[in-house]
Amino acid sequence: MTSALRFEVEVPPPTDGSTRARVGRLTLAHGVVETPQFMPVGTNATVKALDPDDLEATGATIILANTYHLYLRPGHERIARLGGLHRFMAWDHPILTDSGGFQVVSLGDLRVVDDDGVTFRSHLDGSTHRFTPEHAIAVQEALGADIAVAFDQPVRPAASSRDEVRDATERTHRWAERSLAAHRREDQALFGIVQGGLEPDLRAASAEAIHGLPFDGICLGGLAGDETAAQREATVEIAIDVLRDDPRPRYLMGLGSPADLLEAVHRGIDLFDSVMPARVARNGQLWVPDPEGRINLRNERFRDDPRPVQEDCPCILCRRFSRAYLAHLFRAQELLAYRLATCHNLTFTLDFMARIRAAIRSGTFPASLAELRMRASQVSRREGAVKSA
Amino acid sequence: MTSALRFEVEVPPPTDGSTRARVGRLTLAHGVVETPQFMPVGTNATVKALDPDDLEATGATIILANTYHLYLRPGHERIARLGGLHRFMAWDHPILTDSGGFQVVSLGDLRVVDDDGVTFRSHLDGSTHRFTPEHAIAVQEALGADIAVAFDQPVRPAASSRDEVRDATERTHRWAERSLAAHRREDQALFGIVQGGLEPDLRAASAEAIHGLPFDGICLGGLAGDETAAQREATVEIAIDVLRDDPRPRYLMGLGSPADLLEAVHRGIDLFDSVMPARVARNGQLWVPDPEGRINLRNERFRDDPRPVQEDCPCILCRRFSRAYLAHLFRAQELLAYRLATCHNLTFTLDFMARIRAAIRSGTFPASLAELRMRASQVSRREGAVKSA
Repeated sequence: MTSALRFEVEVPPPTDGSTRARVGRLTLAHGVVETPQFMPVGTNATVKALDPDDLEATGATIILANTYHLYLRPGHERIARLGGLHRFMAWDHPILTDSGGFQVVSLGDLRVVDDDGVTFRSHLDGSTHRFTPEHAIAVQEALGADIAVAFDQPVRPAASSRDEVRDATERTHRWAERSLAAHRREDQALFGIVQGGLEPDLRAASAEAIHGLPFDGICLGGLAGDETAAQREATVEIAIDVLRDDPRPRYLMGLGSPADLLEAVHRGIDLFDSVMPARVARNGQLWVPDPEGRINLRNERFRDDPRPVQEDCPCILCRRFSRAYLAHLFRAQELLAYRLATCHNLTFTLDFMARIRAAIRSGTFPASLAELRMRASQVSRREGAVKSA
Repeated sequence: MTSALRFEVEVPPPTDGSTRARVGRLTLAHGVVETPQFMPVGTNATVKALDPDDLEATGATIILANTYHLYLRPGHERIARLGGLHRFMAWDHPILTDSGGFQVVSLGDLRVVDDDGVTFRSHLDGSTHRFTPEHAIAVQEALGADIAVAFDQPVRPAASSRDEVRDATERTHRWAERSLAAHRREDQALFGIVQGGLEPDLRAASAEAIHGLPFDGICLGGLAGDETAAQREATVEIAIDVLRDDPRPRYLMGLGSPADLLEAVHRGIDLFDSVMPARVARNGQLWVPDPEGRINLRNERFRDDPRPVQEDCPCILCRRFSRAYLAHLFRAQELLAYRLATCHNLTFTLDFMARIRAAIRSGTFPASLAELRMRASQVSRREGAVKSA
């Protein structure tokens, strides 16, 4: 473990077993993050359409950046020469970089996995590259995020055979040890990744394996894919059972919709990331409280709606503009639409996390679950999980 | 004339005839505009990629919106129902709307001009519409800008025969009288448009005709097209000769590059608009002072350039980000690139206008012309005029 992270659970789960939801305080090189927390995704060193002030205004305190994308363009060495990722993108708050494992493995026919690493072709220009655990760590050290993540081999949870899951999970454990051995930066925390697909015994064994290694935090990988919510929740419970006395932060990668976040917090998760709130925003889908739940600004009826998207929302969209104006911007394909909509959905998501934290702090989380589920359910209806890629 | 505009020439041109440049103060329903001034173009009720705070930060005090575009989408009646254009786009400062004449007439095969008006097809869906002077005024009154503009028939300056120019100019005069007669709003100023192409006698006669009508201000139309800079400057001089004792503000429509703005101010123009600074910004071309003049951020060498685009620039791009970061955003086609680049070029252009005003105020404009021309020339080299369309 490094000294680059301190995690204090401020409000532990109640002993009556009604929930595993907890509130914590994660202190990192560039600031403090209250958990449970959601990390907006800045794939290319920018959360699409937003500048750092916009991001702060949404309530974001930590963001995720994608190692695979930044390695290919503009290049990790270039970012290091320019002073590191924080300075490059002018974000002076915590950043987590993923390991690139998910993106590399998602390339399908473009990649070959062997025991030493993965050879893959760039989605940008078809050029051939190779990631090993050591290289993934070196790239992340060059980027200089507050938190790096061990290199892993995720599999699609529902579509993979037991043999595929077992092989990938065991390889992930060997790569976890190599990632730890390769990691040098004392000002950067390192998280390990639990795999194991939807196989209960493999997931439990993977949680045990990663629990036994000196990481600063623990990711649950290979979820937020093609599994059902029930499968995901059962799998999270298996992993958290193993980790129940582990003092480190727990991060469920790639989730998701407000309803999914809520259920995962209930089961003991501290950190999340997803492109979903921003991606659906750019398509004109705005998240608002019940009863509307979510509204599609491309719908004809909003062209004459003088109301703000959400009455009590402090975001730059809702403070100044009407639904009618945003509907017009989307129809005219004006760039401002994408920024305003993204600010709103991220504000909604981060406010939802704040409501969850407040309920846990006040000891009312189990009693508030029904109300929080209502707030999240309309937003999340018929919503498939969207993974950061 | 309405009571919706007050124009005071604060610093008149020197009597030695070395320049006709003057500084004025234009008081409108939504605020005061110092002249000479440049109006950023908000075609669809948004200056592309910017929000109102961004616009204010560039130094903008008045913007132009396009009547033709807003008439088609979202519709002038809809904007009126939503409280007018200022409220719709959350810009509580002066706005000028053009008459739609330029856009309608530019549609080429899609339009038919007769003595009563223009029948045209929408570029959006091919539907048929008709603008008359009366209708163009009604649309602008519904939009509710601080300044409306009479309906006119521009022609391409260099590509039109003398007969075409004469017919269009005479029709423009008849339409000017009808626009005046149709205009009702007392809180909205109305400008007339001088046409006459590049024909010296027709341009002078048109200036005389519009000079004789009770407009609040006078536009020079049908320039900033396919003419050379020398042709334009000679034509401006002819019109301003006629208008030399006319106390009203003068607006040269559709210009342009810093070098073009400077020469027009020198010849007595007070107001300008153009999409050019924003359009070239979205293509990655950033305007900076001599000796670089302008830089294309898509150029390989900027990928490793840690400097701001312009060292002493107060815009949101230059205050926080490197050339390398902006170059990366353009390569990754990230939306933030278009906003940052637009903020910079508009800041540069509006700062250039402020330098011109300061030179006129201090009485050093004639002596500063060489230096101002140098600042503008590198930016403007090989740059064709771009008309708002």
